[in-house]
Amino acid sequence: MNDLLLRALRREPTERTPIWIMRQAGRYLPEYREVRSKVDFVTLCKTPELATEVTMQPIRRYGLDAAILFSDILVPVEPMGFGIEFNPGPVIDRPVRSAADVERVRVPEPEQELPYVYEAIRMLRRELEGKVPLIGFAASPFTLAVYMVEGQGSKNFDKIKGMLFDAPEALHALLDKISETTIRYIGAQIDAGAQAFQLFDTWAGILAPETYREFALRYASRVLDALADRGVPRVYFALNSAHLWEEIRECGADALGVDWRTGLDKAHGILGDRFALQGNLDPCVLLASPDTVEREARKVLERARDLPGHVFNLGHGILPPTPPENVQRLVETVQGHRG
Amino acid sequence: MNDLLLRALRREPTERTPIWIMRQAGRYLPEYREVRSKVDFVTLCKTPELATEVTMQPIRRYGLDAAILFSDILVPVEPMGFGIEFNPGPVIDRPVRSAADVERVRVPEPEQELPYVYEAIRMLRRELEGKVPLIGFAASPFTLAVYMVEGQGSKNFDKIKGMLFDAPEALHALLDKISETTIRYIGAQIDAGAQAFQLFDTWAGILAPETYREFALRYASRVLDALADRGVPRVYFALNSAHLWEEIRECGADALGVDWRTGLDKAHGILGDRFALQGNLDPCVLLASPDTVEREARKVLERARDLPGHVFNLGHGILPPTPPENVQRLVETVQGHRG
Repeated sequence: MNDLLLRALRREPTERTPIWIMRQAGRYLPEYREVRSKVDFVTLCKTPELATEVTMQPIRRYGLDAAILFSDILVPVEPMGFGIEFNPGPVIDRPVRSAADVERVRVPEPEQELPYVYEAIRMLRRELEGKVPLIGFAASPFTLAVYMVEGQGSKNFDKIKGMLFDAPEALHALLDKISETTIRYIGAQIDAGAQAFQLFDTWAGILAPETYREFALRYASRVLDALADRGVPRVYFALNSAHLWEEIRECGADALGVDWRTGLDKAHGILGDRFALQGNLDPCVLLASPDTVEREARKVLERARDLPGHVFNLGHGILPPTPPENVQRLVETVQGHRG
Repeated sequence: MNDLLLRALRREPTERTPIWIMRQAGRYLPEYREVRSKVDFVTLCKTPELATEVTMQPIRRYGLDAAILFSDILVPVEPMGFGIEFNPGPVIDRPVRSAADVERVRVPEPEQELPYVYEAIRMLRRELEGKVPLIGFAASPFTLAVYMVEGQGSKNFDKIKGMLFDAPEALHALLDKISETTIRYIGAQIDAGAQAFQLFDTWAGILAPETYREFALRYASRVLDALADRGVPRVYFALNSAHLWEEIRECGADALGVDWRTGLDKAHGILGDRFALQGNLDPCVLLASPDTVEREARKVLERARDLPGHVFNLGHGILPPTPPENVQRLVETVQGHRG
């Protein structure tokens, strides 16, 4: 078995740097678009055979060092009591705007209520036959709260911040419910066979350090800590978080995602040897020429030389217009590199 | 004359902290919406009497410590050879995508080609009668290049980054032309009567430190340096730039804008005594209750206590749904505060 990912995340020695790519199963792949031409996004997420198929596509094509369950961070929102549509961005029905709204939020039993997630994980583990590890994931509680409160994409995040500044108790009550749900949701992913997991804190970067600590870090840490004894590496990825490293350093993850804004050597200097680091090529580089991809990937590898553990990834999800041959060059560059 | 702003920007002693607000003349004000119900945004920018009227509105209503010319950072784009529309976000006709496109970009004579900007400044100086200073402004060259290349709002900035990674010479040639235009554009604002100016680097934060240094800082510094001997304070504001402080520290501005992501005391610690700082209340705070506005404003003032110079402002432009009475409370809190 190729367990490079698991070893790198645990800061154990590896022969070479493992690579996976956020949103590696996605629209940039013609074979993914082929599947999507027949079913909508929600159906794809909810049909284990199809989710398994698209999860496997980039593994087959590129020989990446890990598979990540094809799903969406908003999947747990439905059993928590919300209607949700994608057109194409997510739109949540009756978003949370008050303490009374928080009251009606359910803490579900994900294993019973989201059986398709766990069925896809079991199917994937059989399909992967132990060749590469399978990563599970969820949104961090704060990021899920942003979607539940804003209801849809936001430019200024005025509704979540309005709640944060004017009704902090209501937001804390919501974050409590989301945290409990997330612990169950990921815990059952591990039961079903996920061999590592990542907590995505996509919207952490909109907060100042003090509010980040109170409303985001605290709940991400609660989830990470609750799952510490499950024996799988835990990755925490806060996008656009260069102003938050001192706070993030206190979280209990095994590995931290880093976006392209902070050099991996610099992040290592701030964060110390306690964490493996994952990242951090700018996804826009993959829209350039293959030679540029190779040059920029080598720069990332060079700056990662002295890390206690490094998993190569992008600094954010791969972009739909990415040419598949650029991903080929990226994977060859990283997998051919000996540090 | 109330010259608190000019003294604070020069790090000279002030009796109290001056305050102005980014986009203080704007849609949150009923008297602004009244004007806009009769004319479109472009007409408003291009009609000196109307631009003067809306510039004065927040000065009359709140007694702010500075006026800032009502205009748009994209105004210079038109004489550089681009059609532009606002519906409501800016859309630029035939954006720059290649070295050949850069060739056709003009370096205009703003004083001749944008007479309405300078007429508005002269009119405003008469109208202000020296009561408070008038601030001029422009986009930083990199931020203007983002608009010229993307053509419209962008989520991933893939076109500007594609040029940056694959055709850096073409981007440098474009930035050269924009820098020269910007030096002329602001220089003529000073000639017409602007008593300070701000360079807005709204998109600096999408870059990594190395690319920021090469494509953004270098050209912002060129503009700032070229205008150093004009005797007016120069403010540089890079949004979402917490990962760039070490680079920004090298720019030649008199004052730096800071968004809410970095505490003013922390920014002072990194940036030293060379700069006055401007900021940094989260604009979302102004959507909360008046008491929350006062509480959060006092936190900013407290953290600014030891700065060599502080101008109170938001960390980004004021949001259209802001209740005007919250701005009243903010101004009273800041102007009533004795440090």
